[in-house]
Amino acid sequence: MPKQRIGLWLIGAKGGVATTVMTGLAALSRQAIEPIGLVTALEPFTQLDLVDCAEIVVGGHDIRPGRLADEARRMWTDSRAIAPELLDDAADFFAAVESRLRPGTIIAAGDKICELADPSVVSIVETPRQAIDRVQRDIENFAQAEKLRHVVVVNLSSTEPTPTLPFPTHWSELKKLLDNPLTCPLPASSLYALAAFFAGASYINFTPSTGATPEAIQQCAIEHKAAHAGCDGKTGETLLKSVLAPMFAARNLDVMSWVGHNIFGNMDGRVLDDPRNKATKVRSKDHLLASILGYPPQTHVSIEYIRSLGDWKTAWDHVHFRGFLGTPMTFQFIWQGCDSILAAPLVIDLARLVERAHRAGEKGALQWLACFFKSPIGVDEQDFSKQGTLLETWATTHARTNAANESSPA
Amino acid sequence: MPKQRIGLWLIGAKGGVATTVMTGLAALSRQAIEPIGLVTALEPFTQLDLVDCAEIVVGGHDIRPGRLADEARRMWTDSRAIAPELLDDAADFFAAVESRLRPGTIIAAGDKICELADPSVVSIVETPRQAIDRVQRDIENFAQAEKLRHVVVVNLSSTEPTPTLPFPTHWSELKKLLDNPLTCPLPASSLYALAAFFAGASYINFTPSTGATPEAIQQCAIEHKAAHAGCDGKTGETLLKSVLAPMFAARNLDVMSWVGHNIFGNMDGRVLDDPRNKATKVRSKDHLLASILGYPPQTHVSIEYIRSLGDWKTAWDHVHFRGFLGTPMTFQFIWQGCDSILAAPLVIDLARLVERAHRAGEKGALQWLACFFKSPIGVDEQDFSKQGTLLETWATTHARTNAANESSPA
Amino acid sequence: MPKQRIGLWLIGAKGGVATTVMTGLAALSRQAIEPIGLVTALEPFTQLDLVDCAEIVVGGHDIRPGRLADEARRMWTDSRAIAPELLDDAADFFAAVESRLRPGTIIAAGDKICELADPSVVSIVETPRQAIDRVQRDIENFAQAEKLRHVVVVNLSSTEPTPTLPFPTHWSELKKLLDNPLTCPLPASSLYALAAFFAGASYINFTPSTGATPEAIQQCAIEHKAAHAGCDGKTGETLLKSVLAPMFAARNLDVMSWVGHNIFGNMDGRVLDDPRNKATKVRSKDHLLASILGYPPQTHVSIEYIRSLGDWKTAWDHVHFRGFLGTPMTFQFIWQGCDSILAAPLVIDLARLVERAHRAGEKGALQWLACFFKSPIGVDEQDFSKQGTLLETWATTHARTNAANESSPA
Amino acid sequence: MPKQRIGLWLIGAKGGVATTVMTGLAALSRQAIEPIGLVTALEPFTQLDLVDCAEIVVGGHDIRPGRLADEARRMWTDSRAIAPELLDDAADFFAAVESRLRPGTIIAAGDKICELADPSVVSIVETPRQAIDRVQRDIENFAQAEKLRHVVVVNLSSTEPTPTLPFPTHWSELKKLLDNPLTCPLPASSLYALAAFFAGASYINFTPSTGATPEAIQQCAIEHKAAHAGCDGKTGETLLKSVLAPMFAARNLDVMSWVGHNIFGNMDGRVLDDPRNKATKVRSKDHLLASILGYPPQTHVSIEYIRSLGDWKTAWDHVHFRGFLGTPMTFQFIWQGCDSILAAPLVIDLARLVERAHRAGEKGALQWLACFFKSPIGVDEQDFSKQGTLLETWATTHARTNAANESSPA
Repeated sequence: MPKQRIGLWLIGAKGGVATTVMTGLAALSRQAIEPIGLVTALEPFTQLDLVDCAEIVVGGHDIRPGRLADEARRMWTDSRAIAPELLDDAADFFAAVESRLRPGTIIAAGDKICELADPSVVSIVETPRQAIDRVQRDIENFAQAEKLRHVVVVNLSSTEPTPTLPFPTHWSELKKLLDNPLTCPLPASSLYALAAFFAGASYINFTPSTGATPEAIQQCAIEHKAAHAGCDGKTGETLLKSVLAPMFAARNLDVMSWVGHNIFGNMDGRVLDDPRNKATKVRSKDHLLASILGYPPQTHVSIEYIRSLGDWKTAWDHVHFRGFLGTPMTFQFIWQGCDSILAAPLVIDLARLVERAHRAGEKGALQWLACFFKSPIGVDEQDFSKQGTLLETWATTHARTNAANESSPA
Repeated sequence: MPKQRIGLWLIGAKGGVATTVMTGLAALSRQAIEPIGLVTALEPFTQLDLVDCAEIVVGGHDIRPGRLADEARRMWTDSRAIAPELLDDAADFFAAVESRLRPGTIIAAGDKICELADPSVVSIVETPRQAIDRVQRDIENFAQAEKLRHVVVVNLSSTEPTPTLPFPTHWSELKKLLDNPLTCPLPASSLYALAAFFAGASYINFTPSTGATPEAIQQCAIEHKAAHAGCDGKTGETLLKSVLAPMFAARNLDVMSWVGHNIFGNMDGRVLDDPRNKATKVRSKDHLLASILGYPPQTHVSIEYIRSLGDWKTAWDHVHFRGFLGTPMTFQFIWQGCDSILAAPLVIDLARLVERAHRAGEKGALQWLACFFKSPIGVDEQDFSKQGTLLETWATTHARTNAANESSPA
Repeated sequence: MPKQRIGLWLIGAKGGVATTVMTGLAALSRQAIEPIGLVTALEPFTQLDLVDCAEIVVGGHDIRPGRLADEARRMWTDSRAIAPELLDDAADFFAAVESRLRPGTIIAAGDKICELADPSVVSIVETPRQAIDRVQRDIENFAQAEKLRHVVVVNLSSTEPTPTLPFPTHWSELKKLLDNPLTCPLPASSLYALAAFFAGASYINFTPSTGATPEAIQQCAIEHKAAHAGCDGKTGETLLKSVLAPMFAARNLDVMSWVGHNIFGNMDGRVLDDPRNKATKVRSKDHLLASILGYPPQTHVSIEYIRSLGDWKTAWDHVHFRGFLGTPMTFQFIWQGCDSILAAPLVIDLARLVERAHRAGEKGALQWLACFFKSPIGVDEQDFSKQGTLLETWATTHARTNAANESSPA
Repeated sequence: MPKQRIGLWLIGAKGGVATTVMTGLAALSRQAIEPIGLVTALEPFTQLDLVDCAEIVVGGHDIRPGRLADEARRMWTDSRAIAPELLDDAADFFAAVESRLRPGTIIAAGDKICELADPSVVSIVETPRQAIDRVQRDIENFAQAEKLRHVVVVNLSSTEPTPTLPFPTHWSELKKLLDNPLTCPLPASSLYALAAFFAGASYINFTPSTGATPEAIQQCAIEHKAAHAGCDGKTGETLLKSVLAPMFAARNLDVMSWVGHNIFGNMDGRVLDDPRNKATKVRSKDHLLASILGYPPQTHVSIEYIRSLGDWKTAWDHVHFRGFLGTPMTFQFIWQGCDSILAAPLVIDLARLVERAHRAGEKGALQWLACFFKSPIGVDEQDFSKQGTLLETWATTHARTNAANESSPA
């Protein structure tokens, strides 16, 4: 008897990561590609009784105008990153998802994101609570219409500015503010998180936006028995920092400075061109070095929008360190990766793992998913290898032999 | 009451690594430098009751002509890698070591190494057994003259060609061959190992030469209750491979090819210019990728002697990998490190750790030292982070609180 | 009244460069692409009354099995270098060219090239003279069948080993050797050159193979009033050397070493995997530095076949130089170019320019084309900028205003 | 009979470039080093009857506290760029120069530069005209005291912010503003230029500051028969742009974007950390690409102060370009140069060449010196090779054989 299907509800459903997720799920469903890049295709995760890729139904919110298939096509035309035949073959998948898309919210998402929004989205007037209600209904309707066992909401929308209003520490206080747009500190990413929890869904924040990170929102998740994970998917330059910095620490090499320059040309890059949005991102990319090294080297992180690169992120990192006798030496790397191609399989991994954790009765922030994030909620460990051990330990504990005791799908 | 002093007997005592070890020990003894690059200066190793750097007496073998201090000076004049004032301040240290140097052996060390040898060394006629006896006496005399509690022999000499004669599997058979130069398969690095074991010393093979790796020699070590470790210090490009390859594996990214080009200009580089010597080295640098990834990508490793670089090793590595949907991406790094500066503190670390293990009664190949070596004897694990866990676990187990039960120096 | 069409006869017509030339001519003819990469699309060359791209008819020789369109398709499937729609749109062009292809010759082309040849080509038994006659007839038949005003033959086949037999200095002596395969020193590339001259065609050697470089063959060209140019198209790493080395010279910076590592995965790479073929190529890539700098720095050039790269050539060059006060500094570059994409427009440029020179009555080696070649015949100048001045001067002299006095097409 | 000595008056005499000039002149005078990096040591410049390096007397202005020799020593201690023995050997030279130093002016030099100034300099209250008078007297006193045939003033001080007040077009109007600090638009660099002209000296602006660039100041130079040159020495990343961009242009490759990231840690870097000063510099580094290419690619130039690098400038440039059929390709370079080491010999070259031009009766902006500058005054040509031809042509014209007709030193 097949497992019931689950829902994957994407915030920012027309973006590069989301359309790559769709292209990939379409191809994986018909076994047209190998599962390269999917962590959950490896041992021991294959023993976890995870939902099949073919059983994932996609819907979502977006604020942009334009047809989904046209946006997806840009991964070929602008970036040469997805072969056109894979996009052609996903046409039906795109059409089905498009019929399930709903307009998102841009409350406190920042001027830059508003500029990109469709007029019909900009013209919606609603309080934060009304936005939550609307989004919650969208998710519930999706689950009902598609007969879904569970829904995982993933925030893939562009990075918001850091909120300036203070957050109350307790959910009981925060929820009182939802009716007043002027004093409510919640940006869109957090409204989506609350809507997910109210709808009984899980929530994953793949961006550095606020999402479910504030203490008060985490309390709400616990109260609603909702699992969540975040934040900010670790896909490229920061992934490498979390892999390389432990080596310098282990060898007692003194990192004097670590400079990282990132250039790329996708929508995310255009939004990050606004210094307010960029500040949120840079903080997420930068903080881990001092944590791993045990002292703060001079660091510099730049992110620049270079149109011609499309979805290709090129990062140049320059590490200046001292060795024995104080001798200065240099390590440099150049990373030429395609952001959406790197992120998309992790989104699928996270959806499968979070759904599995939900099935096992877990709630609150899932700390064993730290290796997927630049700023893992509630986790100090930034060493990628040690984060990997957390994940593997969880997986081994929940592997198929132990699955009998956990609530499995009907 | 102070611990008794220990001996550090360096094979290749006039080379860049050895003279950097000496410069460093001289500076550390008078606390003129921070212990950057020394792993044993970090927690938890400081809890291990290790011998102080000021208590390490250095001697050794070499085959080259020339004064020790002049060779040391080349780290400044040829490479700008050690500040001249540090060399000036080590003058007395060099003089003391020079008085303890003895001529080495070049048996089966290959034509390239013989070309570099002093005529007085080339003219020595002896069987392998006679060479072992001579080296053993040198070590024993050193220990006696300097009143040393223990001696650690470290092979820092240039890479030998891979032996062509077959090795018997058992020590009992191998030892019968020691009198016949024509059928004895042992190169110089192995003769030094046997001499160390016979003299009650420990032995560390910091090179990819044969050393104590053959099964029969490992048996001899056990028989003589001698501890040893090796082989081939992991200081630069290969270190990075062992740090980076696990990331590609953990993320299920398909490494199609991994190319590594190394250029440098020190004596080691000149010896590796001979294809027979280079083959030994390339094998040691190359084998770990398939082990970590679980499949063999196309690999290429080159090592070229570029005179102007002196002791500076520049490595360019190009990793071509496929991600989700088969999209090819690229990671490149450029490592500009000074070989001797990177290696020297590890030699000191190893001497301190192996002496500690000897004090704790350990014998045979010390597998928990795997993170220091490109080709750790008897260890399959090539992931640097997991090798690091082996080392930390050993250290925690032997930390000061447990030291009471182990034979400590008078 | 339209100019009559000219013929472009490609040796190695199924290779990456040749099929890219065809894809490009097909697209340019229907004005589907901008003429990026075509030097002759720039001023002052547009004033030269050059043949239009739509008036170039393509035919050629090859020795490989396989359909032309399938080989062309590999620029997409193996390399992602040409968009599939451009290949689709060139289908008729490929079919037309395929009907004009003739089997080539592999005389003295080296074992590696022979391995790749179709059995039907390997089984041809003929003397050098017979091969020349056959090729000459192929060219003449092509010109007649297509009613071509002139034919330009371009050698795009894989690099041959350097011939070992001595070449006589005079054409009168060389031609006596054409009947004896055992004493004739001519490899395939030279047989094609002679056949071209005998057929009244021009000849361009885009490879480092022997071609028309020997003095005796140049005499033959003069005798037959044939224009030719070569050798070895300057498209990537060597182009950069010829651009950068003059800067070091002009600033009196002392280049101590210049190391260049090239990796790529196309057919040319497979042939260069044979050390005999590679030697020919390395020499052509390496010699210019000493010529430009006025002294020989230590140099190293490697070329390695890395399958996954397809037609993408990645070159890493490391230049170690001394400045004022002897301070060593470093310049490195990484070139990630697609060989066929870089070469193809130059082939079209050369065909247009050589045909124009032929029309102007020029014969022998065309030295003003030096900027296109790594080893320009009869030219010492290796500075790209100064070579460019030679080309511009020629173009200005022959620009449209002067064209009246030259024999123009009927 | 020896030529009379000339004076080299350095603005910013305690900076890295200036102290490197002094170290170099001291070493060249006693023939302790080869003239690496000196353009004027090459043919045909050796035929120009230039002043000998031993005949150059150095003095200058600075605003910083601290002893000259201590500042010079930082090229070793902070940067490992000048060998300590060369600094030791220049001790007398430094002492002699120190005795000739005078306090500079910081009028309109920007807040960042003022922060670095000695209190005694900050406390000077004077109008622009008074500052000019004071500087003029310093130069005249220097010439008289040292019996100098001619003085060349070189601005090596940190980059100023771009002036915000409007400049009148005519010198006759500008000079009226010199008494009113509130309406006078002239920053320090321009006051030095005017003082030089009034003192009969030549002036070279090696920085991107205003200097003698404004039309009105150029008129003043002509009026005073003074020669000048500038601005902004072309030593590293921009030099490479002016060498590489012509290649992309010549090959009709479409540069889509050119990103340049510069990191370095010297005083200049600290001053450029102020966005107002940085804007002046970035403009000078960026403008040439559109000029050479003939269209504006997307460009980005960053300059970041990374303390640990000292005087070492590392530049990473990423060029994204399209070739034939629209295929995108990438060229990247990494330049690791020592700024002062690169600049110092050019300062000596310029002093020698400008003095020679003055001797030949030239006045106004010397356009044939364009190859030395990022923003050559009055010259549109940005192609380094073509700029080099300008210089060579001038040199050939003025070579020794023609020198007879020019006013030579007594």
